[in-house]
Amino acid sequence: MQALLDEIIEQTRPLIGQGKVANYIPALGGVEPNQLGIAVYSNDGELFTAGDAQTPFSIQSISKVFSLVQAVSHSGEAIWERLGYEPSGQPFNSLVQLELERGIPRNPFINTGALVICDINQSCYAAPSLAMRDMARRLSGNPGVVIDSVVAASEYEHRARNAAAAYLMQSFGNFHNDVDSVLRSYFNHCALRMSCVDLAHAFSFLANQGVSRLSGERVMSPRQVTQINAIMATSGLYNEAGTFAYRVGLPGKSGVGGGIIAVVPDRYSICVWSPELNPAGNSLVGLQALEMLSDRIGWSVY
Amino acid sequence: MQALLDEIIEQTRPLIGQGKVANYIPALGGVEPNQLGIAVYSNDGELFTAGDAQTPFSIQSISKVFSLVQAVSHSGEAIWERLGYEPSGQPFNSLVQLELERGIPRNPFINTGALVICDINQSCYAAPSLAMRDMARRLSGNPGVVIDSVVAASEYEHRARNAAAAYLMQSFGNFHNDVDSVLRSYFNHCALRMSCVDLAHAFSFLANQGVSRLSGERVMSPRQVTQINAIMATSGLYNEAGTFAYRVGLPGKSGVGGGIIAVVPDRYSICVWSPELNPAGNSLVGLQALEMLSDRIGWSVY
Amino acid sequence: MQALLDEIIEQTRPLIGQGKVANYIPALGGVEPNQLGIAVYSNDGELFTAGDAQTPFSIQSISKVFSLVQAVSHSGEAIWERLGYEPSGQPFNSLVQLELERGIPRNPFINTGALVICDINQSCYAAPSLAMRDMARRLSGNPGVVIDSVVAASEYEHRARNAAAAYLMQSFGNFHNDVDSVLRSYFNHCALRMSCVDLAHAFSFLANQGVSRLSGERVMSPRQVTQINAIMATSGLYNEAGTFAYRVGLPGKSGVGGGIIAVVPDRYSICVWSPELNPAGNSLVGLQALEMLSDRIGWSVY
Amino acid sequence: MQALLDEIIEQTRPLIGQGKVANYIPALGGVEPNQLGIAVYSNDGELFTAGDAQTPFSIQSISKVFSLVQAVSHSGEAIWERLGYEPSGQPFNSLVQLELERGIPRNPFINTGALVICDINQSCYAAPSLAMRDMARRLSGNPGVVIDSVVAASEYEHRARNAAAAYLMQSFGNFHNDVDSVLRSYFNHCALRMSCVDLAHAFSFLANQGVSRLSGERVMSPRQVTQINAIMATSGLYNEAGTFAYRVGLPGKSGVGGGIIAVVPDRYSICVWSPELNPAGNSLVGLQALEMLSDRIGWSVY
Repeated sequence: MQALLDEIIEQTRPLIGQGKVANYIPALGGVEPNQLGIAVYSNDGELFTAGDAQTPFSIQSISKVFSLVQAVSHSGEAIWERLGYEPSGQPFNSLVQLELERGIPRNPFINTGALVICDINQSCYAAPSLAMRDMARRLSGNPGVVIDSVVAASEYEHRARNAAAAYLMQSFGNFHNDVDSVLRSYFNHCALRMSCVDLAHAFSFLANQGVSRLSGERVMSPRQVTQINAIMATSGLYNEAGTFAYRVGLPGKSGVGGGIIAVVPDRYSICVWSPELNPAGNSLVGLQALEMLSDRIGWSVY
Repeated sequence: MQALLDEIIEQTRPLIGQGKVANYIPALGGVEPNQLGIAVYSNDGELFTAGDAQTPFSIQSISKVFSLVQAVSHSGEAIWERLGYEPSGQPFNSLVQLELERGIPRNPFINTGALVICDINQSCYAAPSLAMRDMARRLSGNPGVVIDSVVAASEYEHRARNAAAAYLMQSFGNFHNDVDSVLRSYFNHCALRMSCVDLAHAFSFLANQGVSRLSGERVMSPRQVTQINAIMATSGLYNEAGTFAYRVGLPGKSGVGGGIIAVVPDRYSICVWSPELNPAGNSLVGLQALEMLSDRIGWSVY
Repeated sequence: MQALLDEIIEQTRPLIGQGKVANYIPALGGVEPNQLGIAVYSNDGELFTAGDAQTPFSIQSISKVFSLVQAVSHSGEAIWERLGYEPSGQPFNSLVQLELERGIPRNPFINTGALVICDINQSCYAAPSLAMRDMARRLSGNPGVVIDSVVAASEYEHRARNAAAAYLMQSFGNFHNDVDSVLRSYFNHCALRMSCVDLAHAFSFLANQGVSRLSGERVMSPRQVTQINAIMATSGLYNEAGTFAYRVGLPGKSGVGGGIIAVVPDRYSICVWSPELNPAGNSLVGLQALEMLSDRIGWSVY
Repeated sequence: MQALLDEIIEQTRPLIGQGKVANYIPALGGVEPNQLGIAVYSNDGELFTAGDAQTPFSIQSISKVFSLVQAVSHSGEAIWERLGYEPSGQPFNSLVQLELERGIPRNPFINTGALVICDINQSCYAAPSLAMRDMARRLSGNPGVVIDSVVAASEYEHRARNAAAAYLMQSFGNFHNDVDSVLRSYFNHCALRMSCVDLAHAFSFLANQGVSRLSGERVMSPRQVTQINAIMATSGLYNEAGTFAYRVGLPGKSGVGGGIIAVVPDRYSICVWSPELNPAGNSLVGLQALEMLSDRIGWSVY
């Protein structure tokens, strides 16, 4: 495994330069593009890493998995009255579908759905951002996980489209808390800084029937894990979920910080990271690395 | 397994009456609704059946898998210049997305995509309908598989929406053969009559790395099988692909005749059938039966 | 004329009860539905009234004409870089078109366009709401015109959809001032209370080549008047602009308070009012009254 | 008037070269672009012409007015059960709106609406194309008006998008005759060749309360004329109806052959022609000429 990871890093690193670092906010645009890391954590407790696997980055939409886990944990199936689990077939931030479907987002991994999940969580936690940060610390086993307040503030400043989505849902009665407060929580979650190793550790429960391999904590039931993995498999990569299934064949979730997590059910939790994105907003080199990895070991679940 | 299938049939049969037989053409509307069958075919060559597993029915959109296999076989990756493999997020027969995306269908399992696949196949076979029928006979091992010409004629008569889609794609330059001829082929494919046993046999290669368990014929490469299964997993059940992943967790494809095929990679090919549909156009009882089956054995790939 | 107005009031009053008072905010829903008024003001300075022509009501979207006149007055043709003057073909508050057309509203008489106009005006006036109120007082000759602060506050509380539109435009770079401040101005404008007589007086300049018949003030040039009347003719009644042209044949603008103003170029300014709306959001009895009036005198400009 | 027309021709001719001749079919693309004509026919029976006013051209969508007049003549208000008279706010050949509004076209001057009108007429005439040609001959007083069969055949060959629209309407039950036959009629109508003088003569009844100034024939009632003019005013120039109202201020109808007819109610029928189109598909120089004409004489109805 270690040799394979090293080989993949070596073979995919030359692709750096073909993508484009997210620059919709200055705080993200400044990241050094020439970085690439991978971490694979097995259910046996073995950790394999290569490249910049220890460097923290902005997890961005990968935080949507944490949020969903929180919401499922305290509210269970009831959350599905507020949103669906179908692929959207639309760019990740489109309002067209949201309006046509009367304020019910397609799934929890597009921005609109994640905002509804944050709204649900906002009703359950006194300090939602701290609850999320503490969960990330606990599951990753890294007490140094922090929220990057500069990134969070910059996201808030450029909140226009997410604010539009939240108000549109409010107009359909599908947003219950103060829009501004939920947006602040949402941007705090996105601004968590974690490394590939942190994330591979943190999501081990998705590969291990709901029990964190690191801490032994039961996070969810085995059935809930297959459900969350199913949603990642059909909706985890924005408008490239089908491509990810076709090329990689694993449940996964990406963020515009360049990270992608993936799960080999019952075996491994994985995280790759490289900041440059393809036109669909997913890490260009990260995708390539995951495809090689999955192809070489034959990990596709299909 | 046999006991489980019998139990599932017994427990789900009472749901008959809650759905609605497809009636957009008279020839389909006349089917006896009170039918339910299941067939499971293992890579060891064992066949398990329960209920009306030997009764032929109209396979309808399940034929889209046959068409795609044909197209991949003779044209390989080149077909993806003509269509995608992303979920559509739209009702199965919507033209809105097709127009906004300039005549490129989202995937081969919505009607528009299947029409493009038929157009591709039309350029390769002298007699496309016979080629398809013979493939179905060969893979199912049943020389009695026939095209129901009454159903095909009735579908042709009610071709308006599919004709609209084909002409719209032609207007974007993404349809090369005579619209009418392709429509006739398409409806012939949909009008194939096969039983659950036929279909479980026919699709064994999708559970067996591309080799038909019945005949030993290599139909595709292992890599191609994971790709086709991936497309079924993300787009096989129209606007309920996410729901199918969440509830059943297997690659699958449904038809408005009430059939659903599913694949447990490396282990089983499955077909259930019950004519009544839910509002999304998928077999209501069939879905329930598959969910029970998958849940009880823990078959979800996620 | 007086006899005709009386007859129209008498013949259309029985239609009261067929429509529905706007009730999206409590402050509007409480209006007494059994009211109907009409005022016709000629370029000769004659005023004809019938029914409840002196009763002030919430002018709502009729204020969009005032806003547009302000914007044209200080910024001229430059405003058309920020929005268009084409009919929208969409419900008055849809965001679909706004997103597809990248934040450029179709015209100044749908909500999104009026918000852009308010944003333009916000950059020009120290106190936009007072500037608007004073303009309404001056043009109507009624110093008693006021902003109903209860209505304005209630609209603000239910601002979700308009806030969504404003933020969506901001995300496309087509909104320059603080969203909240502009929304407050916008709702203040909508909450102006004026009577049929006030409005017939106020809009006399649109029937009089740009000169207020009441005060003699030149408000705009003759060319600008034909332009504003043209926009009212093609876009003044939301999704019923075509119907209004077909049935009435005059430039006009409606509001959900039940008022409709209309212009007979070079001859008359008109206002009808009855609170009950048809499904398109226009005064049901008001439309009928205007149709009778226009038909009987042969006022259609077409 | 004559001097003004000559001046307009002289001043606008230099704009030739800025537009683009319609080239979606070869038979249209071959027209000499350097042509410009205008004809104005007064209710006093005076005819003024300038430039290439006697040169026949392909009237294309101007034929939609003839079709609508036919349909209104034999079926009256009943036609409005099959289509509307609202502006579409969409490109002239979009199917998106048609699907969302379940097969009911917005108005008779977009392609989909004109196809429904042709379908209505097809049920009323034994030989619809000849009926249309004879009507054009009678109203223009020119027995030499013919259908250009090369253009009609070429349009038929490139029928894909119109065929798609017709089948889509059929799928909603809003198309009653054989699609192919109606398409042939539709393309024959579009392929009529008439000059500016022919068209100014032919549409004199729209400026003359329904009576042809040329022949004295009553074509429609005065009320019907205001209705048809109203539809032209709000929907006659595809996605530029608002612009035409803003700039010209007259009811009008354009065709991709480069012709535009316009009506000064109770005074003049007008036709301009120049083959090059602007991006919205309307004659670039023709629009400019009409704007100058209307502006100089103060013809805007608004």
